[in-house]
Amino acid sequence: MRYELYYWPEIQGRGEFVRLALEDSGADYVDVARLPKRGMAAMMRFMESRSVEHPPFAPPFLKAGKLVIAQTANILLYLGPRLRLVPRNEATRLWAHQLQLTIADWVGEVHDTHHPISGGLYYEDQKREAKRRAGEFTAERLSKFLDYFEGILKLAPKGSGYLLGKSVSYVDLSMFQTIAGLRYAFPRRMAMLEPKYPRIVALHDRVAARPRLAAYLSSPRRLAFNQEGIFRHYPELDG
Amino acid sequence: MRYELYYWPEIQGRGEFVRLALEDSGADYVDVARLPKRGMAAMMRFMESRSVEHPPFAPPFLKAGKLVIAQTANILLYLGPRLRLVPRNEATRLWAHQLQLTIADWVGEVHDTHHPISGGLYYEDQKREAKRRAGEFTAERLSKFLDYFEGILKLAPKGSGYLLGKSVSYVDLSMFQTIAGLRYAFPRRMAMLEPKYPRIVALHDRVAARPRLAAYLSSPRRLAFNQEGIFRHYPELDG
Repeated sequence: MRYELYYWPEIQGRGEFVRLALEDSGADYVDVARLPKRGMAAMMRFMESRSVEHPPFAPPFLKAGKLVIAQTANILLYLGPRLRLVPRNEATRLWAHQLQLTIADWVGEVHDTHHPISGGLYYEDQKREAKRRAGEFTAERLSKFLDYFEGILKLAPKGSGYLLGKSVSYVDLSMFQTIAGLRYAFPRRMAMLEPKYPRIVALHDRVAARPRLAAYLSSPRRLAFNQEGIFRHYPELDG
Repeated sequence: MRYELYYWPEIQGRGEFVRLALEDSGADYVDVARLPKRGMAAMMRFMESRSVEHPPFAPPFLKAGKLVIAQTANILLYLGPRLRLVPRNEATRLWAHQLQLTIADWVGEVHDTHHPISGGLYYEDQKREAKRRAGEFTAERLSKFLDYFEGILKLAPKGSGYLLGKSVSYVDLSMFQTIAGLRYAFPRRMAMLEPKYPRIVALHDRVAARPRLAAYLSSPRRLAFNQEGIFRHYPELDG
């Protein structure tokens, strides 16, 4: 099956969590809004169509045959077993999804460091509030999330180094992306914190070195971090 | 099976979305932190334990036999088919979950209207920012979410009146809770908007009239909305 991913073509954003799973597993997929012949027009046409049975609230969404699935964590819930990026048993799939939803909360908080008032306003119009929110995020919340995930890795069977224990899962790919994004957005703060989280750093490196993923990351398919995505680098917010 | 729900005992909060599903289906459950003999001590002991295989990041979480499941939408994903509050087929379960995650995003935005800087600070310490964020929320985001869900109800088979189409689901219960909360938090704004959303209002009323739910809502088990939960009424934020 050829999957069709629909997402904004110029940012990593939430779509990147899906792209990483598709790339790592070597899945057959197209990134519709980035195709020269289809592009954003195809995505907007889809979003405005009145004949879609299950319309998404926002991108990303995935077409898989007749199914249309939105919400990043939900897409990964669906793809996980099909791409062999999560074990089949229900208990482990629920646990993976729980971790993914916790990453989604974390990433949502990162977004709000630069848009604490509204996603509909420019950063420049909420800079004062952003500075305050980012200060709270880098001082309090960031280490709360890092503590949690370092703790999960500590619980895993000795030496496995993956969040679910025995083998790599889509949650590990998402953790790689989160750490990469945090390093881009808050380089000073992350450099200070990382020595306390050796298991997370090792996980990031292990994922980055996976052959298909390494090939993807050095290809033009991997968009660069930029000031339009979720992870943005404003030096004044890097407390 | 007797389910054990763990959540803050003095607020509706995110736990209420789970309580509504358990109550509506007449499930056998205990609300652990509200039991005189167990209470908050039991919940905190659980959260601080080092022997929990799948520790939650935050309440609510559910014990179901040996399973421990956290993240509200994930708990409902698990409970839905077991409580007969969602059809069994995978496509519909994914669609229900997608809608639930969209409700979760919406509810997160409601929370941030009174805590735009940090959940760790008092409202009084972020009042100015709250006023600005609530202004954006009530002017822009609120109707965007209402439009979306009214549109979903419009797509449903004629006269069914439920979000998934044929019969009631846990997503309908969550929509009831969201509307009830929004009415508590933003009574002026909701009174203005509601005439535009007759299907959502009808859904709210239909859910409230379900016999088990009506009994729950008028029992002492239903906590009142208050100024500690997600939905809070600050007249100055009700644009």
